[in-house]
Amino acid sequence: MNKSAEVAVIMGSDSDLPVMREAVEVLKKFGISYEVKILSAHRSPEETARFAKSARKNGIKVVIAGAGGAAHLAGVVAGFTTLPVIGVPMESASLKGLDSLLSTVQMPAGIPVATVAIGAPGAKNAGILAAQILAVSDEALAEKLKKYKTELAESVSKKNTDLKL
Amino acid sequence: MNKSAEVAVIMGSDSDLPVMREAVEVLKKFGISYEVKILSAHRSPEETARFAKSARKNGIKVVIAGAGGAAHLAGVVAGFTTLPVIGVPMESASLKGLDSLLSTVQMPAGIPVATVAIGAPGAKNAGILAAQILAVSDEALAEKLKKYKTELAESVSKKNTDLKL
Amino acid sequence: MNKSAEVAVIMGSDSDLPVMREAVEVLKKFGISYEVKILSAHRSPEETARFAKSARKNGIKVVIAGAGGAAHLAGVVAGFTTLPVIGVPMESASLKGLDSLLSTVQMPAGIPVATVAIGAPGAKNAGILAAQILAVSDEALAEKLKKYKTELAESVSKKNTDLKL
Amino acid sequence: MNKSAEVAVIMGSDSDLPVMREAVEVLKKFGISYEVKILSAHRSPEETARFAKSARKNGIKVVIAGAGGAAHLAGVVAGFTTLPVIGVPMESASLKGLDSLLSTVQMPAGIPVATVAIGAPGAKNAGILAAQILAVSDEALAEKLKKYKTELAESVSKKNTDLKL
Amino acid sequence: MNKSAEVAVIMGSDSDLPVMREAVEVLKKFGISYEVKILSAHRSPEETARFAKSARKNGIKVVIAGAGGAAHLAGVVAGFTTLPVIGVPMESASLKGLDSLLSTVQMPAGIPVATVAIGAPGAKNAGILAAQILAVSDEALAEKLKKYKTELAESVSKKNTDLKL
Amino acid sequence: MNKSAEVAVIMGSDSDLPVMREAVEVLKKFGISYEVKILSAHRSPEETARFAKSARKNGIKVVIAGAGGAAHLAGVVAGFTTLPVIGVPMESASLKGLDSLLSTVQMPAGIPVATVAIGAPGAKNAGILAAQILAVSDEALAEKLKKYKTELAESVSKKNTDLKL
Amino acid sequence: MNKSAEVAVIMGSDSDLPVMREAVEVLKKFGISYEVKILSAHRSPEETARFAKSARKNGIKVVIAGAGGAAHLAGVVAGFTTLPVIGVPMESASLKGLDSLLSTVQMPAGIPVATVAIGAPGAKNAGILAAQILAVSDEALAEKLKKYKTELAESVSKKNTDLKL
Amino acid sequence: MNKSAEVAVIMGSDSDLPVMREAVEVLKKFGISYEVKILSAHRSPEETARFAKSARKNGIKVVIAGAGGAAHLAGVVAGFTTLPVIGVPMESASLKGLDSLLSTVQMPAGIPVATVAIGAPGAKNAGILAAQILAVSDEALAEKLKKYKTELAESVSKKNTDLKL
Repeated sequence: MNKSAEVAVIMGSDSDLPVMREAVEVLKKFGISYEVKILSAHRSPEETARFAKSARKNGIKVVIAGAGGAAHLAGVVAGFTTLPVIGVPMESASLKGLDSLLSTVQMPAGIPVATVAIGAPGAKNAGILAAQILAVSDEALAEKLKKYKTELAESVSKKNTDLKL
Repeated sequence: MNKSAEVAVIMGSDSDLPVMREAVEVLKKFGISYEVKILSAHRSPEETARFAKSARKNGIKVVIAGAGGAAHLAGVVAGFTTLPVIGVPMESASLKGLDSLLSTVQMPAGIPVATVAIGAPGAKNAGILAAQILAVSDEALAEKLKKYKTELAESVSKKNTDLKL
Repeated sequence: MNKSAEVAVIMGSDSDLPVMREAVEVLKKFGISYEVKILSAHRSPEETARFAKSARKNGIKVVIAGAGGAAHLAGVVAGFTTLPVIGVPMESASLKGLDSLLSTVQMPAGIPVATVAIGAPGAKNAGILAAQILAVSDEALAEKLKKYKTELAESVSKKNTDLKL
Repeated sequence: MNKSAEVAVIMGSDSDLPVMREAVEVLKKFGISYEVKILSAHRSPEETARFAKSARKNGIKVVIAGAGGAAHLAGVVAGFTTLPVIGVPMESASLKGLDSLLSTVQMPAGIPVATVAIGAPGAKNAGILAAQILAVSDEALAEKLKKYKTELAESVSKKNTDLKL
Repeated sequence: MNKSAEVAVIMGSDSDLPVMREAVEVLKKFGISYEVKILSAHRSPEETARFAKSARKNGIKVVIAGAGGAAHLAGVVAGFTTLPVIGVPMESASLKGLDSLLSTVQMPAGIPVATVAIGAPGAKNAGILAAQILAVSDEALAEKLKKYKTELAESVSKKNTDLKL
Repeated sequence: MNKSAEVAVIMGSDSDLPVMREAVEVLKKFGISYEVKILSAHRSPEETARFAKSARKNGIKVVIAGAGGAAHLAGVVAGFTTLPVIGVPMESASLKGLDSLLSTVQMPAGIPVATVAIGAPGAKNAGILAAQILAVSDEALAEKLKKYKTELAESVSKKNTDLKL
Repeated sequence: MNKSAEVAVIMGSDSDLPVMREAVEVLKKFGISYEVKILSAHRSPEETARFAKSARKNGIKVVIAGAGGAAHLAGVVAGFTTLPVIGVPMESASLKGLDSLLSTVQMPAGIPVATVAIGAPGAKNAGILAAQILAVSDEALAEKLKKYKTELAESVSKKNTDLKL
Repeated sequence: MNKSAEVAVIMGSDSDLPVMREAVEVLKKFGISYEVKILSAHRSPEETARFAKSARKNGIKVVIAGAGGAAHLAGVVAGFTTLPVIGVPMESASLKGLDSLLSTVQMPAGIPVATVAIGAPGAKNAGILAAQILAVSDEALAEKLKKYKTELAESVSKKNTDLKL
């Protein structure tokens, strides 16, 4: 773990790691420093509160939190910090992430959670959103994001060339 | 507020009070001591944590928690205490309590919340469930519950007598 | 079957046993006596009513009921007894437990069912909730629950140490 | 109550009467004898069981049962009788009858409930379905149903003549 | 096909046959004559209308109709006949039968469809419901249903004896 | 009614007229001839079938069908004709049009219904879609649609000028 | 790509191709010229806008657009053209296409998308609907559609002959 | 309009203004410059694209976009810019914002939208989230957010003092 990390990627359980790794890969790609922690709003609430309350003074700028079911992690962290908190709803076993999504996004006035899509696409987008937030005051990162956007468009174009019907 | 209250009735916002009053009325009816507090998992997380961690040693035996939307209150309190926590999902403005229900009931293994129905029927039933829990070791209260059950059946019977078609 | 069991774990079908076993394991772990029965609100309603009406005088203190689809078992038992009844919504074949959840939790005012999460996490939590209810008047059991909670937090901490990215 | 009634119209609460009256009106129109009772699967389970077990020998041929929320009435009655049981899901306060519908229709193999639409259209159709069931062995009633069907088609035709754009 | 069949089991596609066979097995078991037909409300509407209009005069007493997705078959047949029509919502590929259920059960006032559970349990129950309807005027069949009900209860009891924990 | 109408606007009940009038207004605006009929898939199935089978030879080019609940009208008409059929899901009383939407859109392979949004916006769009379909081979109508699109954009621009904060 | 194609089949990702191929097969079968393109409303918005704005003048008469999740492709294209746009909601990973369906069909007044069923049946129906739209002014194509409809009915009939119980 | 605004608050229709004003009030409170625009992804797509493509170079740092139904506005803008885009799902007429929520949040990998709660609480939180994003590199604003958080907690505390039961 890196005290001077810009982004903290936290999750309710180590079983969320294969999905949340998508966020980590994006941060790596953009050269953004990060730390990864297992923190449960329910099973380790003290440690979660401690993390959230000291996040800003530890240099963290954005928190990405993944959780499933009654997914309280992002909201609980957002209650303890004024940093932007991005919530990734995990695809849950029975309700396929509808519970995770509603538990993450329907926050009361006063305490926002920036919610992204259910599962892996959401985790990847959480990484990109964190980069976009940091790029508000980082021109070099903004340039990287612009380049990434161009590559996305080109990869779509290229698929047309390769299209086999 | 009463330090020696047996049941704590807490809720995320004072706008939940008209609904949560149903729980209070039941506790009064059964002669169970109670305290009522506004505590928000998101807006007053420190106070919520303090309440939950000291609840057992303050003599509280059951917690009833009402919250709506991304309803984290019951789950967060359950994370900090080993007391039985009853969750009442409030009927929310847009999704009519489906969000509150899923946020309250879909707790991960290890941290249960005893969830009741959405809105006023749920609040009333939270009071009755608290009484049932206390009655496990309180014969007099168990007697009162039995009497209440008989009255319920009689009130249904009486409606048949009065039935106007 | 054990006449002096403190907790009855009942379920609508023997196909629910692999899931409901999670509840049984928790009760064993906490040294709580239990009995297990297949009882269907629809296929064996007479036996179910007999069970529910005599549960309290047979020494049972808490009932855990698992059922799926139009999951009436917990509610029907709650109609016949003043004991706390914990409902576990089974994950159903087509609607993935949404039907089981709503059939279990949306009880009318007067007759609560303490509903937990859909499927295996809910079954495990039903066992813990039963322990919490019994611990209201059992200091030794309350100590065990406190220890279990500490272990949960430690297991989360340990996962951080082991984290491989 | 009429011992020789052919159809029993039962409901969980007298607040369901304005909706269930639609079923009664249809039975009146077709000259089918009926009785109406308030019976709750949860608040008056003994009386409900007694009713259901003796329904066939009391001359009842079809049961219509309306209930809302965790709507167990139709299913519980169906558990105690081999008569056809028609379930009418009431429109519930928060979930608008989705809970009532799933609790009524998703019965396990072995115990059917003939479920109709949520609310007033369902209640009316419950009356017609009861008539259709009785008409299987009653030619005069079958004739009345045929006439009713013709009138329905004519009323649609007539609306075209009256159409004001 | 058998002109003098009492029950017609129809379905929108031959891919529904493995599920609808559950209904057929029940009819066989109770000694009820039946016919099976593939009839699509959308792909063979003329033949469907012809079937429905002549069903009563061909001696059919109850129609069981299985369909999935925008499941119109039961409703369309009910529009053309005054016989009781039982609708079985098939489990659909993407929405898991929620679409089939709502398309089958939410019929407008005037034209009921007796809807049973989604998929195989519903198909089996459609067969039992057809037997219950015929048993209204058939004492021998009513006896068989009573016996079947007793066997159901006994099979549950027996499972308790065999229970291995 | 106008034999040479290009578009038929049909609906299951005259209570749908206030909503379906939105479609009619659009057709008027674009100078497209139309006829309006109340036709129920369930209450007047014969007349509906007759209408659908003769629609093409009566000169109709597009059918707009509005229905609610178990909304079968559009699908049933599509079963009888090869004309494009546009389905408008009415907002239903209890399920707010989710039932109407799924009953209209989830058609089986072979028989499409071109489904638009629930309620009034959908009805208006049904009129526009009918115009777009006719404009495939009608340059003058295509010009009108282009002009309408420009006006839409201008009306949005104008709102910016008028914006009061 | 073929400048003179009558139908453009576009999709958000090449992973949609196996499903969208169903539409292409239908167009081939009816001898309708087509082009296929990968175009993303989000990853290649410029190219998507260019395509949509020039579609009519490039001779395209109908657009079929398949997309999943927050499925904006059909709606975005419809914003830029007055051609009829058919939307195919892809079955998404977690929510099974409910998100895709609502994102495609719930368009605001002014900009319709002709939405078909989720997944492969919808893709096939999109091809048929495109043919129906072109057949409004193409008698030969209308004849082919009529023949196809007859074949559908015959294939259902044939299945009855082959029925093995 | 203000060229040097830090936050752009855009919405699909002026009917969204009463809700989106909640975001504006927060921005005012925190002294953040803003501009407000009506921009429709469907009715004014050209202007929307122009806005989104030039937003960064016009000095905008965060975009807040509110839309309902098939809510494409936030996603479409996010396709054209690398700025953080916050999506506010409007409460829609029939589906109460479930459609708006899924259309906004379920974005494909590559293009995130930071989604907040449905309706007014979401709009308010969009303003706070924008402030949190800007505060990543603005200590003074971070201080204001910290103060706001303290006030939130105090307002909850104060409600306890005022509590009338």
